Amino acid sequence: MNYILKNENAIFYECGYSCDHAIYLKLGSESFFITDGRYEIEAKEYARGVDILIDRDIINVAKNLIRSNNIKNIIFDPHEWSVADFTSISSDIESLFHVGHDFSRKKRIIKNSSEVNKLYQAAKLGANAFDNFTAALQSNGIGLDEFALTYHAKEHLSYRGIYDLSFEPIVAINANAAKPHAMSTYDVLKHNDLLLIDAGLKFERYCSDRTRTIFVNHEMHSGTMQHFNSSRLQKVYDIVRKAHDEAISRLRSGMKSCEVDAIARNIISDAGYGDYFVHSTGHGVGLDIHELPIISSKSDTIIEDGMVFTIEPGIYFLNEFGVRIEDTIAIKDGRAEILGA
Amino acid sequence: MNYILKNENAIFYECGYSCDHAIYLKLGSESFFITDGRYEIEAKEYARGVDILIDRDIINVAKNLIRSNNIKNIIFDPHEWSVADFTSISSDIESLFHVGHDFSRKKRIIKNSSEVNKLYQAAKLGANAFDNFTAALQSNGIGLDEFALTYHAKEHLSYRGIYDLSFEPIVAINANAAKPHAMSTYDVLKHNDLLLIDAGLKFERYCSDRTRTIFVNHEMHSGTMQHFNSSRLQKVYDIVRKAHDEAISRLRSGMKSCEVDAIARNIISDAGYGDYFVHSTGHGVGLDIHELPIISSKSDTIIEDGMVFTIEPGIYFLNEFGVRIEDTIAIKDGRAEILGA
Repeated sequence: MNYILKNENAIFYECGYSCDHAIYLKLGSESFFITDGRYEIEAKEYARGVDILIDRDIINVAKNLIRSNNIKNIIFDPHEWSVADFTSISSDIESLFHVGHDFSRKKRIIKNSSEVNKLYQAAKLGANAFDNFTAALQSNGIGLDEFALTYHAKEHLSYRGIYDLSFEPIVAINANAAKPHAMSTYDVLKHNDLLLIDAGLKFERYCSDRTRTIFVNHEMHSGTMQHFNSSRLQKVYDIVRKAHDEAISRLRSGMKSCEVDAIARNIISDAGYGDYFVHSTGHGVGLDIHELPIISSKSDTIIEDGMVFTIEPGIYFLNEFGVRIEDTIAIKDGRAEILGA
Repeated sequence: MNYILKNENAIFYECGYSCDHAIYLKLGSESFFITDGRYEIEAKEYARGVDILIDRDIINVAKNLIRSNNIKNIIFDPHEWSVADFTSISSDIESLFHVGHDFSRKKRIIKNSSEVNKLYQAAKLGANAFDNFTAALQSNGIGLDEFALTYHAKEHLSYRGIYDLSFEPIVAINANAAKPHAMSTYDVLKHNDLLLIDAGLKFERYCSDRTRTIFVNHEMHSGTMQHFNSSRLQKVYDIVRKAHDEAISRLRSGMKSCEVDAIARNIISDAGYGDYFVHSTGHGVGLDIHELPIISSKSDTIIEDGMVFTIEPGIYFLNEFGVRIEDTIAIKDGRAEILGA
C-alpha cells in the first residue's frame, strides 16, 4: 500500500521523528522522509527506517518520487493537505491520489504498550500537576483573576517550561465554567467558588487530558470527591460524578462507543439533566489531543484493548455554573483503567 | 467582488471578530459571518457589518448562500482551505470558485493608522519585556539552561499571562544561536556567553517581533550596542548591526523590496560573510507574524507608507555562534520608523 503523509503527528508515528515542514512517503516497501536543510541534522539522527531527502521544495521531491517509481495509486488524507499544496503535488497525476479519511488516525486507534506507557507517564505528570496547582491555590490563589490562574496552571502543567502543553488550559470560575469555550476573564477567585480546570501536558509527544471541578476552600483538592456548599450544585456534581464513575467501571471491550456514551448520558438524562450535557462523552487521546475513537451517541466503533480515550461527562447551566469530570482511560484486559490515577 | 474566507486572521480583519470555527462570506454588498453555537454570544457582540448565521455545519450554510444568491464567481485562497473542506463546499459548484493566492494578506499589506498604533503598542510592550528579561537575567540568569531561560522569557513577554505570544520564543546560547531553528538544550548560561533572543507578543491580536544578540556579563542589556570579549565575534556583530542600521536608515518608499534586502545583504557580502546570511532580510508583520511584504532578493514589491515589516540581518557560523539583530519598522512619510524603539 502506498501513502503520503503531511501531518506532523502522522509522520512522527511512522518513523519517530517529525518537524513542521516534512512529507512522509510510503511506496511499497520503501519509505522516504523529505524535509528542508533546517531539519537535516535532527532527521538523520532520529528518523528510523526511512531514506532522508533534503530539499527546499519538498512537494516537488515527493512528486518526482511518485512519478519515477511509476506508482499507480497512493492514499492521502484530505484533512492534512491544503488545496494549494495538493494542487502542486497532484497536478498532471491527480488520478493516482485516493482519499483516505483519517488514514493515520485509524492506524493509531490501538496503542501499543510503549505508547500506553507514554500516555501513562503523561497522565501521571498531569495528575501531579493538578495536585501541585491546587495546593498552590490553597495558599495563594484567592484574589487571582482567571488570567493569572491560567498562567499559574501553565506554570505547574509545564513544570516551569519542561513539558509542552496538550492544549491551552481552561481555568474557569463559577458561571464561566458553563461556557463551552471558556475564555479568561478578570473575575477573581473567592472562597466558596466553583473552579473548573481542564488541562494536560505532553510526555514524549503523547498527551494527557483531565478535568476537575473543585470547591474552593481551605481544604481544596483535585480529587473527584468534592463537597460544595450549595445543595443544588452538589446534586448536579454527584450526578456527573456518577456518570463518570459508572461509564468507567461498566465499560467493557466489545461494546460499541455509543453504548459507552449511553452509560454516562442515561445517568444524566434519567436525573433530568439530559439537555444540559451538550457534548459527547469522550474522544481518543494519543499524539493528538483529539483522535479516535469518538465516544458519542453516533459512533459504532467497537471498543478494544489498547484504545485510549477520555470519559468526560458534564452538566452546564448558562450564566450559573458548569460541572465536568474527565479522566483519560486505557482499555486493558477488556476493562477501563484510569491513567495517572 | 465575492469572496470567502476561512483563516482566523483574515476573518478578523474584515469584521473585527473571529474564532477557530467560522466562515466569512462577502457576496456583493452583503457580508455573512457563519459559526456554531459556541461562539454565538461573542459573534453577536463583536462582529461588525455582518449578518450572523449560527449552525453546526458552517460549510453547508455557506454553500447554500452561494447557491441561493445565484453567485457566478467567488474568490478563495487555496492556502486557507483543506482539500476535505474545499471538496465539501465546492462539490457541484466547483466552477464558481476562483483561486486568489494570498487574497487577504494582499489586502492587509498597507496598515491603517489604527493598525500601526496597535503594532506600535505591541512593539513597545515587547521592547519593555526584553529590558525586563535582560535585567532579570543579570541578577538571576547565570546557571539557567535554555529551557528555563525560554520559560522566563515567556513569563516576561506574556507579562505573566496577560498577552499571547506572537510565536514560541527562541532563547539560544552561543553555538545554538547559529541553528536556524534553535530548539532548547540543557546548556546553561555563563558569563561571557552570547545570548540570542527572538521573541514577540500580541497586543489586540497584532504581533511584535524583535531579536537581540547580547553579551552576557554584569552590565548586560538588550540594546543594539553590544561589546563582546572576542574580537572576531565583535567584528561579525558590528557588520550585522551596520546592515541592520543602514537598511533602516537608507530605506525609502518607492524602493523595491529587493533593494531594501540588497542594502543589508551587500554590507554583509562586502565584508566577506555573504554565504553566512542564509535567509531573507525581513517579512511583513501584522495580525500574522509572517505576512506581506517579503523583503528578499527576489521580491519586487514597491515599499509604501503604511507597510510594517522586520529588518533582521544575521550571520551564522554552524557549531560556533550566530548573530541576528531584528526590529519591526513602519513606513511613514517615506521612511522607516522603528516600532517600540
